[in-house]
Amino acid sequence: MIQINHVETLQCNVSLHLAQKPGLLRILNRQNPNFTFINPVSLCLLIMVQDMNLQANRSLQYLLLKMQQTRLKQQIEFIIEIDKLKNVLRQTLLIDSSRRENSGEHSWHLAIMTMILAEYAIKGTDIFRAMKMTLIHDLVEIDTGDTFCYDVKGNESKAERELQTANRVFGILPEEQGKELRLLWDEFEARETPTAKFAVALDRIQPFLHNRETEGGTWKMHDIHRNQVMKRMAPVEQGTPELWDFMLAEIETCVAAGYLRKS
Amino acid sequence: MIQINHVETLQCNVSLHLAQKPGLLRILNRQNPNFTFINPVSLCLLIMVQDMNLQANRSLQYLLLKMQQTRLKQQIEFIIEIDKLKNVLRQTLLIDSSRRENSGEHSWHLAIMTMILAEYAIKGTDIFRAMKMTLIHDLVEIDTGDTFCYDVKGNESKAERELQTANRVFGILPEEQGKELRLLWDEFEARETPTAKFAVALDRIQPFLHNRETEGGTWKMHDIHRNQVMKRMAPVEQGTPELWDFMLAEIETCVAAGYLRKS
Repeated sequence: MIQINHVETLQCNVSLHLAQKPGLLRILNRQNPNFTFINPVSLCLLIMVQDMNLQANRSLQYLLLKMQQTRLKQQIEFIIEIDKLKNVLRQTLLIDSSRRENSGEHSWHLAIMTMILAEYAIKGTDIFRAMKMTLIHDLVEIDTGDTFCYDVKGNESKAERELQTANRVFGILPEEQGKELRLLWDEFEARETPTAKFAVALDRIQPFLHNRETEGGTWKMHDIHRNQVMKRMAPVEQGTPELWDFMLAEIETCVAAGYLRKS
Repeated sequence: MIQINHVETLQCNVSLHLAQKPGLLRILNRQNPNFTFINPVSLCLLIMVQDMNLQANRSLQYLLLKMQQTRLKQQIEFIIEIDKLKNVLRQTLLIDSSRRENSGEHSWHLAIMTMILAEYAIKGTDIFRAMKMTLIHDLVEIDTGDTFCYDVKGNESKAERELQTANRVFGILPEEQGKELRLLWDEFEARETPTAKFAVALDRIQPFLHNRETEGGTWKMHDIHRNQVMKRMAPVEQGTPELWDFMLAEIETCVAAGYLRKS
């Protein structure tokens, strides 16, 4: 018989149980297609009950319901929390120059770019994963705001501040979902996998296009010169090498048009 | 020998050629992994050349380059065009009530919700496809603005106005990409597939949460009552039946709290 003290303990045990039997989720899915979209927590409990030859009784069902409610509550809380990203302003202007862009709409723009520019990604890029990465990559700005890419001092403390926000914001979610998003963010920040390289490249191309279209918007405001932009755009060559010639040509066009200072 | 008059004609022929030989793309991918991320247009040309036993010559290479440039130009133009969605205001307020939400950031919010609430989608839902759907579903508002869901008169002409924008905006892209996005949008609007039902359900849940969190924000402004919201939320039962009980309880909570008029 399982001793259950309270819901949190059970949830913890169940996570552990699943980690020890990673194959079970898939086996059940194959055998019974109805399980495909079952809530992972309830699935874990079913596995647990099956393994230990216990009858699912009323109190277990009650606990299951409570756990599902807790899980949904955490998910809804997260959905509400991330609304704050719509108030985090970036330096970048909208293309019509009407106002500064926020990090929520910026992330949306990048996610669509993963679809449209997918063909230029390097071999091994997982486009679905890249899309998820672009969607969540700026959530760490919720507490700390956006750090301007050419702000040397601000960027020194950026990593530490963003790490704290990552722990808090991803921590709102049910444990395994929080971990999934954290892994996505870590991968994006490390810029080692093809998928992360592609996502980072898009994160550089998008503000570049905004600066080009606003005739040097942020560059002019902060007196940015060609070499700074060249350095900033370097990840484009890594993640979308097919677009590197295009970027180089565009940088020169922007210098020639007076949008960007030569040196 | 192929007679090529100008780039547009070639592009048209090439699209036709690919449509007639749908298996070739996959075969080449399997045989030569380097093809996996090649630009589809150049791949088509390679297939064409291979089929007709022609030597790729300098003029063909030049045409290929021009076609790639045209393709990239269309893609960049589209990326710039969709920035306008960030200026399309919805009735919904941000959760901190500071301002109205725009359709770009709203789409971002929905796309993250497809990840977080995936487990509640009905069987047969393709989460990647649902995510793409949420990202592009409001692009048709670029020319026409958002039509408030409870505006009966505005909703009569909505379909026709949005169709015109769809033709214009998706038409900026290379033909097959424009068609892909159009298919996604058509599927979303038809609400027949599990994927579309899930995406539509999220598109209802998100503003509901904003109205709950802003203590009745848009509902109070427009004097909306319980039955209107109940009708508006009906697709939640179709796309995420597991969340329907939660929605029903939440509606009653909002009525009891005075956020929503009972009748």
